[in-house]
Amino acid sequence: MNYPSVHLESVINEFAKLPGVGSRTALRFALHLLSEDQTQVNQLAQSIINLKSEVKLCRHCYSVSDSDECEVCRDTRRNRSLICVVENIRDVMAIEDTDSFNGVYHVLGGVISPVDGIGAGDIRIKELVERVAKEDIKEIILALPTTMEGDTTCFYINKSVKDFGVKVSALSRGVSIGDNIEYTDGITLARSITNRMPFDAIYGR
Amino acid sequence: MNYPSVHLESVINEFAKLPGVGSRTALRFALHLLSEDQTQVNQLAQSIINLKSEVKLCRHCYSVSDSDECEVCRDTRRNRSLICVVENIRDVMAIEDTDSFNGVYHVLGGVISPVDGIGAGDIRIKELVERVAKEDIKEIILALPTTMEGDTTCFYINKSVKDFGVKVSALSRGVSIGDNIEYTDGITLARSITNRMPFDAIYGR
Repeated sequence: MNYPSVHLESVINEFAKLPGVGSRTALRFALHLLSEDQTQVNQLAQSIINLKSEVKLCRHCYSVSDSDECEVCRDTRRNRSLICVVENIRDVMAIEDTDSFNGVYHVLGGVISPVDGIGAGDIRIKELVERVAKEDIKEIILALPTTMEGDTTCFYINKSVKDFGVKVSALSRGVSIGDNIEYTDGITLARSITNRMPFDAIYGR
Repeated sequence: MNYPSVHLESVINEFAKLPGVGSRTALRFALHLLSEDQTQVNQLAQSIINLKSEVKLCRHCYSVSDSDECEVCRDTRRNRSLICVVENIRDVMAIEDTDSFNGVYHVLGGVISPVDGIGAGDIRIKELVERVAKEDIKEIILALPTTMEGDTTCFYINKSVKDFGVKVSALSRGVSIGDNIEYTDGITLARSITNRMPFDAIYGR
């Protein structure tokens, strides 16, 4: 497509590098910004610059933070001997939003995926093993995607930390709460029967 | 949702003001930018700033341009007595891409939509009438959406320029090229029969 302005074309090319944004969506963004006032547009630009220059990774768990130690790791009331291992920062935010976890995190920054050329060395497994070796870790909860890649990563981590005598657990699998049985996929349903839980564990106090 | 960084939250809020972007998509954008290098992120920010400060509206047709006269209006080979009236700049780009129009444009910046509170005074109809009054315009082609709002705007413009003796036409309506008859909507099909065209007008030279 021919653009009537090089500056318009430039911003469209930049927007189109964002995930899931094609040139049509990028054009919509650009025309929207053109109709906004200068202050609003500068705010967007400034917030993008600040994001990169101000946001840091926590030196313990690699979650994002405004300093080199994130809020979770700084919080003395959290249980530092319990590490929840997640793929990315979105997972940290999702779990924090449930208000049901009192430990700390370890953000891998991906999962092992040979198809995408991501090996164990490309994600922060070494850093996790170091934490287990140096800190007083009692349990690791694997909260990784329930995909082949996630499972592969779980196996790899389990093997890597086995010698340190740390307990390794994973999120429970089963029928989602609020789901109808008839619409639950067969694999989940079959495993939910095999791994059935005592009545009290689900409905009891 | 609680964000682990105020800078992350700020960029998410700004991105979420873009059309069609919710907080989840904005978060995806932000995390993508975090993983990009500084140069790339600055390029995006700079292109946004440039867009607003450098891109201008053409003083004739209100299309976007890098100067106050767009490429189309500057081009002496274009027929200045033929104006194609469109809703927005995207329409200009779509028509230019067909390479089948040799006139100039007039970008209304919207269509009359009482539901959205957009009246005739909110779009550039007055400016169009002024062009018809001052310049030597022979024909206006209405290339507006084939919706109730587009039709309303067409009627209004037709009435506004009637006294100047300018010819007013509109894009032909009918079955899209490449479409199967069975999948064409009923209204279009009925109107295509009523407004049937001579064989030679469609298949002839």
